[in-house]
Amino acid sequence: MLQPSFTMQTPESEDRPRRVCDHCAFTDYVNPKVVVGAVVVEDDHVLLCKRAIAPRLGFWTLPAGFLEENETVEEGTLREAREEACAELVLDGVLSVYSVPRISQVQVMFRARFASPGFSPGPESLEVALFAWKDIPWGQLAFPSVRWALEHYQDWLAGAAAPFSNPHGTVYR
Amino acid sequence: MLQPSFTMQTPESEDRPRRVCDHCAFTDYVNPKVVVGAVVVEDDHVLLCKRAIAPRLGFWTLPAGFLEENETVEEGTLREAREEACAELVLDGVLSVYSVPRISQVQVMFRARFASPGFSPGPESLEVALFAWKDIPWGQLAFPSVRWALEHYQDWLAGAAAPFSNPHGTVYR
Repeated sequence: MLQPSFTMQTPESEDRPRRVCDHCAFTDYVNPKVVVGAVVVEDDHVLLCKRAIAPRLGFWTLPAGFLEENETVEEGTLREAREEACAELVLDGVLSVYSVPRISQVQVMFRARFASPGFSPGPESLEVALFAWKDIPWGQLAFPSVRWALEHYQDWLAGAAAPFSNPHGTVYR
Repeated sequence: MLQPSFTMQTPESEDRPRRVCDHCAFTDYVNPKVVVGAVVVEDDHVLLCKRAIAPRLGFWTLPAGFLEENETVEEGTLREAREEACAELVLDGVLSVYSVPRISQVQVMFRARFASPGFSPGPESLEVALFAWKDIPWGQLAFPSVRWALEHYQDWLAGAAAPFSNPHGTVYR
């Protein structure tokens, strides 16, 4: 078996280099990936998941993950909440669309609530819990965009219009 | 040189089949791609581009295209308007987030206006033009989501809250 090996080359009729396989004629078009997730709120408490996997194992995050082929953003968000928090959600609209160009991600975050009672840790979570806004473990959040989404949800509660984009000055390159 | 050849196999610790190269150990993770674009409005007229390339050559579309690596959704939208309509835009917010699961696309459409006067066809457009709402060539639009975005922009003008999702019943599989 050969080992994977790629070289950046600019294909004919293209304007930028692409990953071209050194063994065969395959061009690996790499584009940004979509992360979908939700700020799930019940009675002024928000659902957070303590990560059981790298990166940021042991830190708190929103139920979120990579959108899969042939899924809508809504379906992907519901699937991630099932996988990470064993929770069934109702989505109430797009809260924000963030870009993380350093790692080529677009994150679509929804406002959501529980469709039925109950949640528990899925295989990727050590713990899932509802936090009052004042008790959110701000110092132990897994990713900057978790903070953005939580703060933007509070802005939305205060009357600001969704969808939100990256907070000013927070485009990581 | 070998020819590209892939077989669907479920990698260990994964829950679904992925494209695995028949020649080497490369797993080709394929995820939905992001299309970014804009409804550009000036004096109650909207900017449309007549496509010079397949698919849907000769049909009218919004300036839009695939987001590239290390771009924000805003940067990608500005780039596509430059490439397809030689236009410089100011973005006014996300109009809609559409999913087209049949072809694994997520489309993020912005409300926009011109940052400076002037536009002209780029290499992927035969023609670019401003249309009054009543003169939009509804029968000659390139893609369903072009119609969705134009109709949602009018809904937004009428006071509906953005962002919009797929119109009810229009998830193509």
